[in-house]
Amino acid sequence: MKELHSLGLRHSENNLLVLDQQMLPDKSIWLHAKSPTEMIDIIQKLKVRGAPLIGVAAALSLAKFAETTSDTALIRKTAQQLRDARPTAVNLMNAIDRMLENLGNLTKTAEMIFEEDVQLCEKMATNGAALIEDGDSILTHCNTGGLATAGIGTALGVIRKAHEQGKKIHVYVDETRPLLQGGRLTAWELTQLKIPHTLICDNMAATLMRDGKITRAFVGADRIAVNGDFANKIGTYNVAVICKHHGIPFYTVAPKTTVDLNCATGKDIPIEQRAAKEVRGAAGSFGDVTWAPLESPVFNPAFDVTPAELLTGIVLDTAVYSRSELASGALKGIYGKGK
Amino acid sequence: MKELHSLGLRHSENNLLVLDQQMLPDKSIWLHAKSPTEMIDIIQKLKVRGAPLIGVAAALSLAKFAETTSDTALIRKTAQQLRDARPTAVNLMNAIDRMLENLGNLTKTAEMIFEEDVQLCEKMATNGAALIEDGDSILTHCNTGGLATAGIGTALGVIRKAHEQGKKIHVYVDETRPLLQGGRLTAWELTQLKIPHTLICDNMAATLMRDGKITRAFVGADRIAVNGDFANKIGTYNVAVICKHHGIPFYTVAPKTTVDLNCATGKDIPIEQRAAKEVRGAAGSFGDVTWAPLESPVFNPAFDVTPAELLTGIVLDTAVYSRSELASGALKGIYGKGK
Repeated sequence: MKELHSLGLRHSENNLLVLDQQMLPDKSIWLHAKSPTEMIDIIQKLKVRGAPLIGVAAALSLAKFAETTSDTALIRKTAQQLRDARPTAVNLMNAIDRMLENLGNLTKTAEMIFEEDVQLCEKMATNGAALIEDGDSILTHCNTGGLATAGIGTALGVIRKAHEQGKKIHVYVDETRPLLQGGRLTAWELTQLKIPHTLICDNMAATLMRDGKITRAFVGADRIAVNGDFANKIGTYNVAVICKHHGIPFYTVAPKTTVDLNCATGKDIPIEQRAAKEVRGAAGSFGDVTWAPLESPVFNPAFDVTPAELLTGIVLDTAVYSRSELASGALKGIYGKGK
Repeated sequence: MKELHSLGLRHSENNLLVLDQQMLPDKSIWLHAKSPTEMIDIIQKLKVRGAPLIGVAAALSLAKFAETTSDTALIRKTAQQLRDARPTAVNLMNAIDRMLENLGNLTKTAEMIFEEDVQLCEKMATNGAALIEDGDSILTHCNTGGLATAGIGTALGVIRKAHEQGKKIHVYVDETRPLLQGGRLTAWELTQLKIPHTLICDNMAATLMRDGKITRAFVGADRIAVNGDFANKIGTYNVAVICKHHGIPFYTVAPKTTVDLNCATGKDIPIEQRAAKEVRGAAGSFGDVTWAPLESPVFNPAFDVTPAELLTGIVLDTAVYSRSELASGALKGIYGKGK
């Protein structure tokens, strides 16, 4: 397999390497993912995360594994295990399914999945940046940048592109409890990119909106149903509701591989429930800390579903689809040539 | 001064004692507040908190100080310093102003402020519990219980009263970033009281509402303007907006001393900005941890303002005031005999 380099995933000197996102921003530790079993653990512990990137990482891991065996049944079984590592982001399933359709050519297919993701990011960024105006203050949630994809990102890629186009923008970063992907990862990426930003707790965005400090919101997506409903990091639906209340344009940004034609509406999207300890405390390079009583039950869905009617539009690599286009079934033909 | 005992504040054997709320729920450490200077530090560091309780604590501290000096000018100056310890909760200003009107009788006045707070809590709880139906699932934000008042609390007192009345209820507890008063204190109080509850991150309430899991919301208030706009813990306005979107009744609960006749609307309420490190990490019995880049600027208001039009009503000790009564100026006569 060729050399491949992204912000959080590398194939280098024949090693598959993953930047441990649980240790960021304090420590940059590259993990050597020596087997699919190790990659599954890395994915489940969110050391690698981001809907597009986990698809790419799983594909690379499967291809590396196939270099060590010609047992097709074992490769298929391993593919299924990788596919089941997390239930909500459809990019993982799509990447593995594509690998299985190309069993004779796994290395080349995995390389293509990586490189196509870079190109998809560029196209989304170009489509989305056209929606951003000079002077915009943009709210984003979770991390959707170079750490979530093989390229420059989805929603954060759009923001980065607008910044690179010379538009004066300011980014408000939801810290994104419980796993703090905004506070730890997006804040770090924006610091590296020198894009002006302010870190906030998730419950502060509404008051900023009321004060006129936020003019637009961009988030990612883990799965998009045919009607435009979409699953994304827990808290996204909250962002959608407060945007609606304040009349603020709200977009999700994703590659078209995030659209799941098997999901008619958001009700069909499975939502992963995670461990209570994530809400009872926090984890990072400092280790684990707990502040809530262990006796208190916890609700901890990794994602929520936002109905299409709260969207201003969906930014895909193919085009931007407005709410009315979504309502007219524009996504049904998405695996054709775009709109 | 007589013996006085509440969940978080005591006068015992001539010592003024404050339960260090920053150490809860892991450690119960009673701090000896030996002087107003120490009490101001305790208030500013939120070791004692809750709008009603900081008023009571400051009054007790001033009375204890006055037992050691007859220098009226010094007492007045000390009173002003206590009054300025935090800017938003008007209960602190009201308590100190009442002390200054009774300079010759500070001990008795402080005792009365403490004991009246207990009675005010009972009256609010009775008024508010009447709004709760068997089977309700109630969202609350921050901590408004026995740790926030000298009595059983404001919003959490209402919830406790409904539970004690035998109503089957479930409480969803916003963890309340950044200082986690929900996750640390409310969850702890509800555990002690054996009231069924679930701890959530602040960004999860909206998806619970969409799923029909929340039927009512009660929060506290740090200052209420004459038109019914009110300041409360950051994130309250977010709760109000998502309740509005889902048609869920939303109430604030406070003693009438929280109404500030000098504030015509919420625009007149000063909002305290706090240190960036609170948002960049968390603090508790485990010490301080940081997860966000120190280079990232932070927005950290301690409170936000919710406009009266998002309220279903205000529960005071005197009565429950509906949105239309608030709009008709019902609070203008609040320091009379109730409605």
